[in-house]
Amino acid sequence: MKHKIVIIGGVAAGPKIMAKLLRTTKYESQIDLYTEEDMISYSACGMPYFIEGLIENSERLIVRKPEQFEEKGAHIHLNKRAIKIIPEEKKVLIQDTITNEIETVNYDKLAITTGARPFIPKIQNINLKNVFTLRRLQDAIDIRNKMLESKHAVIVGGGYIGIEMLEAFAANNLHVTLIERSPYLLPIFDEDFSERIRGEIIELTKEKGNVEIVTSESVIAFHGEEKVEKVITSTGRIIDTDLVILAAGVVPNTELARDAGIELGVNDAIRVNNRMETSIKDIYSAGDCVENYHVVSKQYTWIPLGSSANKEGRCAAINIADQFDAFPGILGSAVTRFMNYTMSLTGLTERDAKKLGFDVISSTMTQKDRAGYMPHAQSITLKLVADRRTEKILGAQAVGQGDADKRINTVASALMADQKVSELFNLDMTYAPPYSTAVDPLLSAAMVIYNELHKC
Amino acid sequence: MKHKIVIIGGVAAGPKIMAKLLRTTKYESQIDLYTEEDMISYSACGMPYFIEGLIENSERLIVRKPEQFEEKGAHIHLNKRAIKIIPEEKKVLIQDTITNEIETVNYDKLAITTGARPFIPKIQNINLKNVFTLRRLQDAIDIRNKMLESKHAVIVGGGYIGIEMLEAFAANNLHVTLIERSPYLLPIFDEDFSERIRGEIIELTKEKGNVEIVTSESVIAFHGEEKVEKVITSTGRIIDTDLVILAAGVVPNTELARDAGIELGVNDAIRVNNRMETSIKDIYSAGDCVENYHVVSKQYTWIPLGSSANKEGRCAAINIADQFDAFPGILGSAVTRFMNYTMSLTGLTERDAKKLGFDVISSTMTQKDRAGYMPHAQSITLKLVADRRTEKILGAQAVGQGDADKRINTVASALMADQKVSELFNLDMTYAPPYSTAVDPLLSAAMVIYNELHKC
Repeated sequence: MKHKIVIIGGVAAGPKIMAKLLRTTKYESQIDLYTEEDMISYSACGMPYFIEGLIENSERLIVRKPEQFEEKGAHIHLNKRAIKIIPEEKKVLIQDTITNEIETVNYDKLAITTGARPFIPKIQNINLKNVFTLRRLQDAIDIRNKMLESKHAVIVGGGYIGIEMLEAFAANNLHVTLIERSPYLLPIFDEDFSERIRGEIIELTKEKGNVEIVTSESVIAFHGEEKVEKVITSTGRIIDTDLVILAAGVVPNTELARDAGIELGVNDAIRVNNRMETSIKDIYSAGDCVENYHVVSKQYTWIPLGSSANKEGRCAAINIADQFDAFPGILGSAVTRFMNYTMSLTGLTERDAKKLGFDVISSTMTQKDRAGYMPHAQSITLKLVADRRTEKILGAQAVGQGDADKRINTVASALMADQKVSELFNLDMTYAPPYSTAVDPLLSAAMVIYNELHKC
Repeated sequence: MKHKIVIIGGVAAGPKIMAKLLRTTKYESQIDLYTEEDMISYSACGMPYFIEGLIENSERLIVRKPEQFEEKGAHIHLNKRAIKIIPEEKKVLIQDTITNEIETVNYDKLAITTGARPFIPKIQNINLKNVFTLRRLQDAIDIRNKMLESKHAVIVGGGYIGIEMLEAFAANNLHVTLIERSPYLLPIFDEDFSERIRGEIIELTKEKGNVEIVTSESVIAFHGEEKVEKVITSTGRIIDTDLVILAAGVVPNTELARDAGIELGVNDAIRVNNRMETSIKDIYSAGDCVENYHVVSKQYTWIPLGSSANKEGRCAAINIADQFDAFPGILGSAVTRFMNYTMSLTGLTERDAKKLGFDVISSTMTQKDRAGYMPHAQSITLKLVADRRTEKILGAQAVGQGDADKRINTVASALMADQKVSELFNLDMTYAPPYSTAVDPLLSAAMVIYNELHKC
């Protein structure tokens, strides 16, 4: 008997579940994916680079087209919004977003992959024209078109998306003002790193002079007739602008799950066990809408990232197919850039580690990313965070025009293995002058901590 | 009472021991370093790039000058060759390489850091002028000077140094022939990777047409009056040349240790325990002259690399200073490049794993190193090797114009932690379109192995 699998949501985790199920030949299933959008399976993370103009066509962001799934026997239903899940009857009510017609769909197993959406802060006149959020591919197209005829832009929020949009607009010679409510840019980093990042962004745009960063202020109102023309902040600052990007964080799309009685966790993200099962039998979830287990803090958290969405989707599919797979959790590893400046982190920051009650020791060093005598050697600043008592590594942050990201992935692997500082500094990393220093900055950072702990 | 520490050898491990001892304020010592060279502490790995012309001045390769150590109270003795160790009397005989005078030096603790030297194959007329090895900084200077007035060069040996010299000469528009005795270029890689590397080097130099790679042939003779003019191979091939680089591997400088009765191991490298102690009390060793414990094969091997030399030197210094430190061993992680093509590996190759009796499973994949729609996305080919029975990762190789090295360091960390394939593919690696794909090629490779093992 073919199982009827229904998937709600089509950006990353949903298509991944579908793709994996289609490859699992042992498990016979009929797969129906419903999405309220008019496309599926696209790289949301690539949208800022499309807006910037680095990708000539938005079509390039589409990972797989519906036809590619249809050919293999799955059914893709575009412009169909799930409006209610009835677990006791194993049914979902689906509404056509064009005709508004409602149909009832049965499932044997259901996967909720509804993702996240931009958080909309309380700002007066938020519905003025040219105030954008970046959620769907169409948003990216609209933003790019508006950008091309604009001179001034305001970005509300200094997280990853804020920084990426800052690059996109700055590269297109707009005058951009980024407004971050907290005192720090990219507040997910430690304060010293946030300050460093802010300084570097100002430095990199100094010549053009078209970037302004405002922190510790929030946007309270937009002014304009129909279209946004001015942005008013909490200190009374008035900024002229042609467009606004709201990038003040995201919230999980979990109203559908909550209304069905599914247990939610941190930030109202869907709670799942390590097989990606929700609290209701035969309902799975994966991607930006699920809560995450953090391997280092050993606490539940919510860090929605595309890389996790893919792994969770794979895990959900294997379990849906009556096999066994467990997802071990996340480290919050992330990377972004501003021009040629990389910002990357994994595990816990010093601030978070202290909050969690670790006896924190850290070392920060600025070194060349490759032999200093090589052309193209660039600085990176790396901070390693560890626990004094257990000597376990807790996290790392790295920024710089050099190869910062490489070191962070090495630490991620060490974190996953629950390694001590002493295990890290003896790591046999590759070395050649074009790639690193004989003692890699990461190993140096680990040695400094060990030396302090052991007075050697 | 001050301990008298004598260090023999001054390139990498020796200066590292000295530097670390000088920072260990708790331990009072008098440190004397003897080297037969006229300088210490230079980056031997950087020499090919100096020859290429990427580093304007050979001085840039010097890490620390003797004065920097002298200021801190150590004594550097240049042009002094150790000719005999008398362990029972705790003495070393030292000969001045200029005056030939011999002096006797007492030690409380001795560190042998004599490194390795090029292996000299049996070739007729090997003493002709312009037949070079690359060992000391002066060699690099001589080779560069000769290169600048040359049109043709022959490189004997297709290992790391051979490939790096190939880049140097090709970039300087010489016609270069590289001759490798085995059927494979960089035979430390698996055969399929060696073939790939050869193909890529040919491809990258096709336009200029100035590189020829000859395998399965050995050089049997050089011809010429005074200076080398022709190279004769085992198949009777005759190659005109202005200079020759012998890069046919290295041998450890351990005659001094052997004559003192110190136990040698694999390839006659000095056997040390994990505190870097040799078989004779109070004699330590580190760097290219010591045997290595391979963490994955759990066997002794000899893989002399600058990165290990530094770690071993640190470990030796701590133990010399009556503290405790243990060096866990190596993975054989290495990287080199030919132009913009990176070749990197860690742990065991498929071939070595099979020889060692593992039940090998591997996956090889060619993927973009970052989101395919990003400018500068480049291919990498990655092979992951694992054991079917234990599902443990055994090693990885990565090559390509993309960011291959990053993935290898991540695997190195996983190998050090003795991780399984399932632990690797769920690793929370950083993701953003300019840095990787949503599912990193490394994670894909691990998944393919897991899927095959678990039929999922």
